Amino acid sequence: MFEAAELGHKIDKETFRQEVPKLRAALLDVQYDVLQKKEFPVVILISGVDGSGKGETINLLYSWMDPRHISTLAFSEPSDEEAARPVMWRYWRALPAKGKVGIFAGSWYSQPIADRITGNMRKAELDERLDDINRFEAMLVNEGALVLKFWFHLSKDAQKQRLKALEKDPRTAWRVTKESYDRLKTYDKLQEVAGHVLRVTNTAKAPWIIVEGTDDAYRSLTVGRIVLDAMKRRLQQPVPQVPVAPPIVQAIDGRNVLSELDLTQKLAKKDYESQLAKYQSRLSELVRDPRFTGKHSLVLVFEGADAAGKGGSIRRLGAAMDARQYQIIPIAAPTEEERAQPYLWRFWRHLPRTGRVAIFDRSWYGRVLVERVEGFCSEADWLRAYAEINDFEHQMAGAGCIVIKFWLQISAEEQLSRFKERQDTEFKRFKITDEDWRNREQWDAYVDAVCDMVDRTSTGLAPWTLVEANDKNFARVKVLKTVCERIEAALDGEGKKKS
Amino acid sequence: MFEAAELGHKIDKETFRQEVPKLRAALLDVQYDVLQKKEFPVVILISGVDGSGKGETINLLYSWMDPRHISTLAFSEPSDEEAARPVMWRYWRALPAKGKVGIFAGSWYSQPIADRITGNMRKAELDERLDDINRFEAMLVNEGALVLKFWFHLSKDAQKQRLKALEKDPRTAWRVTKESYDRLKTYDKLQEVAGHVLRVTNTAKAPWIIVEGTDDAYRSLTVGRIVLDAMKRRLQQPVPQVPVAPPIVQAIDGRNVLSELDLTQKLAKKDYESQLAKYQSRLSELVRDPRFTGKHSLVLVFEGADAAGKGGSIRRLGAAMDARQYQIIPIAAPTEEERAQPYLWRFWRHLPRTGRVAIFDRSWYGRVLVERVEGFCSEADWLRAYAEINDFEHQMAGAGCIVIKFWLQISAEEQLSRFKERQDTEFKRFKITDEDWRNREQWDAYVDAVCDMVDRTSTGLAPWTLVEANDKNFARVKVLKTVCERIEAALDGEGKKKS
Repeated sequence: MFEAAELGHKIDKETFRQEVPKLRAALLDVQYDVLQKKEFPVVILISGVDGSGKGETINLLYSWMDPRHISTLAFSEPSDEEAARPVMWRYWRALPAKGKVGIFAGSWYSQPIADRITGNMRKAELDERLDDINRFEAMLVNEGALVLKFWFHLSKDAQKQRLKALEKDPRTAWRVTKESYDRLKTYDKLQEVAGHVLRVTNTAKAPWIIVEGTDDAYRSLTVGRIVLDAMKRRLQQPVPQVPVAPPIVQAIDGRNVLSELDLTQKLAKKDYESQLAKYQSRLSELVRDPRFTGKHSLVLVFEGADAAGKGGSIRRLGAAMDARQYQIIPIAAPTEEERAQPYLWRFWRHLPRTGRVAIFDRSWYGRVLVERVEGFCSEADWLRAYAEINDFEHQMAGAGCIVIKFWLQISAEEQLSRFKERQDTEFKRFKITDEDWRNREQWDAYVDAVCDMVDRTSTGLAPWTLVEANDKNFARVKVLKTVCERIEAALDGEGKKKS
Repeated sequence: MFEAAELGHKIDKETFRQEVPKLRAALLDVQYDVLQKKEFPVVILISGVDGSGKGETINLLYSWMDPRHISTLAFSEPSDEEAARPVMWRYWRALPAKGKVGIFAGSWYSQPIADRITGNMRKAELDERLDDINRFEAMLVNEGALVLKFWFHLSKDAQKQRLKALEKDPRTAWRVTKESYDRLKTYDKLQEVAGHVLRVTNTAKAPWIIVEGTDDAYRSLTVGRIVLDAMKRRLQQPVPQVPVAPPIVQAIDGRNVLSELDLTQKLAKKDYESQLAKYQSRLSELVRDPRFTGKHSLVLVFEGADAAGKGGSIRRLGAAMDARQYQIIPIAAPTEEERAQPYLWRFWRHLPRTGRVAIFDRSWYGRVLVERVEGFCSEADWLRAYAEINDFEHQMAGAGCIVIKFWLQISAEEQLSRFKERQDTEFKRFKITDEDWRNREQWDAYVDAVCDMVDRTSTGLAPWTLVEANDKNFARVKVLKTVCERIEAALDGEGKKKS
């Protein structure tokens, strides 16, 4: 893997001096084009062997481009806010906006590689993480990002010489620490682990670029040219599209998960009141349980047809909790800052920390529901969303987050009568908009979208609960009961694992 | 102060039952009006004696309004990201956007009151903090926010009874802890401290509303009505304006801080190169000094006429530091999320944590420069900005941040020749815009604005450095030298304090 990066590549000083001004002018040019177009971010990963010139190269890129539109993020220990959320949260929050260049000095690769070298991570775990990373990077590229992953290589001898040279120069001696020499000792292990990591994550969408780090001029010019070339090409290319998935199979007998729901289910007022009280009080205890607050967070997703009663169910849940513990996130049109990021970014930013609860009133499923039905995104976009959403929820679950998703279903007749009732009698804020009536015309298209969504995203870790919502009482109790049971199952699971 | 809140105010159940539906409908109505207008945020502080019904009241407000547009923030120990920044940073990041309701359960008052009770804060320190708070709240109100500060009071006996009642009910018993009884012991001390705090912060712009907490129905209805009434009145009123400050005094001899600068100062190329190297290497050491990284952060502000050479100076600073340690923040038009917040919010969000550096290419001074000159904000807005900016920088300095501000001055002739040079020869990205030519026509207005700015915001903690920038070499070295000297002074100050 690293053979070509041990050939002793060199560039003489004179060539370097001649090349740099041209390269610099061209880089500035292309950077401004990217900035003006604001169509995609540039994500540059700088990784590799210690002493291979990572810091120098980043500083050079700063001096060659306009540093005001570059940000560099270094990742050492996660902050407590980061540690209380899924592993990838800190990288999501650091993603550059469209038009900008984001350099990751240390990245989502650093921790797994370090942990594998020390033996803190098993091989199987590492491979699982690499799989997650591949999917994350594919998502970035599918969202339009230009992802450039550099690995700077040095032979063992070259690394030793490099450290000595750094030590000799008073301006750089500070950079050589005991850890640097420790890392020299683990050189072989690093090569083995990195070799594996690079092989597995050397994907078509985000391939690795291995650069020999020995000669400053060679390394810098190589990186500069690759960045230039990649930005130029990306400017000329349309956003790469994923291949379209096979068509959706509809059951030929017309039955589906929604048509099979028994919407006549009801709960009498008296039963409703007693069960509501029972589950609210149980929920109130569960979210205060130290087994919950110390290890878990809770994410509730509410989707459903207009007027299906999402708001009413959310209210009953909220009433059982302390307002200081939960947050309701109503999903409306994305803001300007959100539009400058990958689709899921605006949901990642609201993930609750350990011990907290987030209730999403509509959610990331918008992409495979309204955006699909109304044609607000391309087919390729919503088709790849299923897998991206599963990854997202998988990562939440991996961090102890309990993900509970509700689809509230009402019949077309019930919706019509609720619309009419709202139009005639209720407060003005509930008044029906033209959009609601338009959505209604798409009823069948929504049924298809919902069935596909359930098929493709009801996973073991984050299953969908379909709620028969023609009767509000029945629906609210089913929601509350489901939430209690899912939390209980998670807490009991903990107990079992321990014993 | 609390006498009126010990009268045993009560509302009978029947009245409560009759009033609530009307109140609720009206609250929902007004909440939606506020949401649709998106003109101001509603900031509600819920504070007071333990057991006085703070949590209940917040939950009631949630059930009376649409909870999707309310957020509640509870503040206990700051996270490590918060602890590494000025005290108020955590409150700034929690401010609700225009149109939304933000409830602060625990607020900027909690810590000072608690610390004063335990004796961790001296009286003089407390008063200084209260002064800061008054200015912060005045800023919020001037920015349009509706600020409602509730203090729930209980007599000592009432508090005791309340705790017992909570303990008896299995649904609320969990809320009574050892700390609750400890607080009963400090009741008198709390009354004394809170009495003082409330008196000092009972301002015309953000007065306290003291509510007796004994009777649930009375307390809830009172709060609900006050919130309703205040939101209604705020909707009808235009943003309150601060009185206009006295006119700016111009020296009758026409001399000012800019006219007195000797713009002929120059640095020969050889001297430039040796001094640049000297100060870059010194800066490089200073920002790695453990006395800096462990206690301080650095904020650099660059302002100046167009083409004065801000970018070039910033580049030379950056070259002396590691890209992973600093961030350049180019200030452009605010984003949608930024426009929904007070003016300074978009600068607060970029404050560096301890050990880090932020370089602002243009800054919060935009308000008293371009916005004033171009009339982008009202006179009242830019007049009050001076004090708000001083407060902002005072808070940074208080948290160990070294604030260094540069105004780069060139002569009108020098600017003209740089404009022409750019227009004729340089890369397209440096081409001159029409705006640059327009700004030039306002030269004299900018001189007035700059002189006022220096007069009013050059403080001991954050003085302005005026840089003679006709000669780029001279300017760059002066900037670098100033940065080094200011950091050294801060570090030496530390040393002296210790010894």
